[in-house]
Amino acid sequence: MTSVSILGATGSVGRSTVRVLEGERERFRVEAVAGGRDAAGLAELAIHLGAKFAAVADDAAGAELKARLAGTGIACGAGRTAVLEAAARDADIVVAGISGIAGLEPTVAAFRAGRRIGVANKECLVAAGAFFTAEAERVGAEIFPVDSEHNAIFQALSAGPRAAVEKVQITASGGPFRTAPREAIAKAGPAAALKHPNWSMGAKITIDSATLMNKGLELIEAHHLFGVPPEQLEVIVHPESIVHGLVAFEDGSVVAVLAMPDMALPIAHCLSHPGRLPTTCRKLDLAALGRLTFEAPDLDRFPCLSLALSALGEGGAAPTILNGANEVAVAAFLEGRIGFYGISAIVEETLALATRGAAPASVAEALQLDAEARRIALSLLPKFAAKAS
Amino acid sequence: MTSVSILGATGSVGRSTVRVLEGERERFRVEAVAGGRDAAGLAELAIHLGAKFAAVADDAAGAELKARLAGTGIACGAGRTAVLEAAARDADIVVAGISGIAGLEPTVAAFRAGRRIGVANKECLVAAGAFFTAEAERVGAEIFPVDSEHNAIFQALSAGPRAAVEKVQITASGGPFRTAPREAIAKAGPAAALKHPNWSMGAKITIDSATLMNKGLELIEAHHLFGVPPEQLEVIVHPESIVHGLVAFEDGSVVAVLAMPDMALPIAHCLSHPGRLPTTCRKLDLAALGRLTFEAPDLDRFPCLSLALSALGEGGAAPTILNGANEVAVAAFLEGRIGFYGISAIVEETLALATRGAAPASVAEALQLDAEARRIALSLLPKFAAKAS
Repeated sequence: MTSVSILGATGSVGRSTVRVLEGERERFRVEAVAGGRDAAGLAELAIHLGAKFAAVADDAAGAELKARLAGTGIACGAGRTAVLEAAARDADIVVAGISGIAGLEPTVAAFRAGRRIGVANKECLVAAGAFFTAEAERVGAEIFPVDSEHNAIFQALSAGPRAAVEKVQITASGGPFRTAPREAIAKAGPAAALKHPNWSMGAKITIDSATLMNKGLELIEAHHLFGVPPEQLEVIVHPESIVHGLVAFEDGSVVAVLAMPDMALPIAHCLSHPGRLPTTCRKLDLAALGRLTFEAPDLDRFPCLSLALSALGEGGAAPTILNGANEVAVAAFLEGRIGFYGISAIVEETLALATRGAAPASVAEALQLDAEARRIALSLLPKFAAKAS
Repeated sequence: MTSVSILGATGSVGRSTVRVLEGERERFRVEAVAGGRDAAGLAELAIHLGAKFAAVADDAAGAELKARLAGTGIACGAGRTAVLEAAARDADIVVAGISGIAGLEPTVAAFRAGRRIGVANKECLVAAGAFFTAEAERVGAEIFPVDSEHNAIFQALSAGPRAAVEKVQITASGGPFRTAPREAIAKAGPAAALKHPNWSMGAKITIDSATLMNKGLELIEAHHLFGVPPEQLEVIVHPESIVHGLVAFEDGSVVAVLAMPDMALPIAHCLSHPGRLPTTCRKLDLAALGRLTFEAPDLDRFPCLSLALSALGEGGAAPTILNGANEVAVAAFLEGRIGFYGISAIVEETLALATRGAAPASVAEALQLDAEARRIALSLLPKFAAKAS
């Protein structure tokens, strides 16, 4: 039996993980589940999966979790230390699906020799990538990408030696504004930006898809995950979201990984690699689909991608600052406080104002840089406040 | 230094091999080259490559070859035994590019423990696949596919365990008649059928591309090369010829290999695997291409594919007979003796008339079955003679 813990169990990645595990009860058992503040949902999951421990991040939700798990024999806790305990408990695989910078500390807490950590949390690799990967290597933990794009790259890279890799491409759906003119995008509010054409995800990442910041963050992730230099990393727009990633080798071969969009697939791959697991994902039928289209991203209409590419090239603290400022700006956009292009403007100005030193060398340093970026970004919100229309 | 011999050196695959080797003089040396009847071309190649031995299959061309190589220090010979000597000489890799059933004996002659044989000759695997692969395994030779489709499959299969493979797809350009109605195809002569949209190849294989027989033969090859059962093998029409092969795994992941159409690429892969070689192949630019399209093959307009699928499913002697009859029929079509649908009609009737026993267990048995199929097919030519229009 392979034991699995799920951090962010009540979120999008967590739910998909549960879906995969449900079909493989004889192969996997669940050690711990951790969630944010949804005590009822977490308790239900813990009971359903037969977990041994459940942790809710929000202290205030602890009492409800305890009450709901009373008599089940499932231990539980609330707050930061409880989540860290869930991460550190004895399990072969930890699926780290807590989104945002909040996932950084628990994911690092999950490091242990020989353990596989399925990282669905972008921020670990974006805000503290160098530290994160060095730390994993130091203790002997295996970082496994749990999103479609990096999982595709991971699979494609196996087709040749690393020295023969010439280019790594991550696909972008292009989001809801792919074909919209700049003037229309400028006026778009949260409702329009949340209409993602292919994926059903959380609000933060869906906005990042609309700005293409998501792809910029993914390039930064890919850089750390696979040790690919910035100049070999590229985004290509592919509206059908069938091809998830491509690796070009020096001989001219390009290895691509295709699948119907479904988070369960990279999760199943993480749980079973180097094997595979049958999943209930819809099977790809290219003849029925008819065509796949590709185009270059438009950096003018999607300046967030341009900012992320610069931060990737610059390295050091820039990606951490970019990420912190973006979280604040996206939250403000979702609250209607700034317009769509306010997001990129705030990220750009934060990068210009913040101290851009070395890459963070610890979780504490990453959190400190992140806090500085957030403080600056917050201070900029009035300047880019959305005008009442 | 890796030593290489090239069988069929003056043909299409041979020329591409020479092109790859020219850029890698410090890594490879050429042991032997063998050609059909072009003594002048072969002599020039042998001198250019610094080969130690040159063989021409046509006895009558021997004198010219000898004269042209006089004083070069390059040994040479003519006829069947000379070609077999070229195949058997001491080399690490033999690129077996002699097309047609004539390539069978020399390719088997190249078998030796630890040697890699780049097989560009379809007939070895189609007409004697079971014997051929068993023989390679027995002596410890490594069979390496040297065409775009099987090379793509070879690369894609590395992404997961064989037991997790659900489907293997080979792409077809669809040939010059992909969108033509049946009535128009029926009237097409050799000139129209030879207009292949994407590849520049020999006349035989170009006609096989127009009938889709080529894809049927490739499925039979894939069956033997990779041990994939017939029911997991599929053809998908993809007019752009950018995606060459796809492998679907049970989790829903589909690994595809893409490249600009260029024979040099699979040859370079054969010469360097598990490494890679930089090539001068044009690099793929998906954003510039814009789109890739896919459709199911039409078995009604392309009955040769249907016949090949049946022969693949039936196994035994059927693929050998199919192949022999097809060679005769295609030659007759190229000579204007039969119409386009005469090809499939002759193959079908030959399969109905020939003795369909066990799969050939030796080169001799394969040649015997092939000869029977050819005899029957030849006898059918008058029945399907093209009407003067």
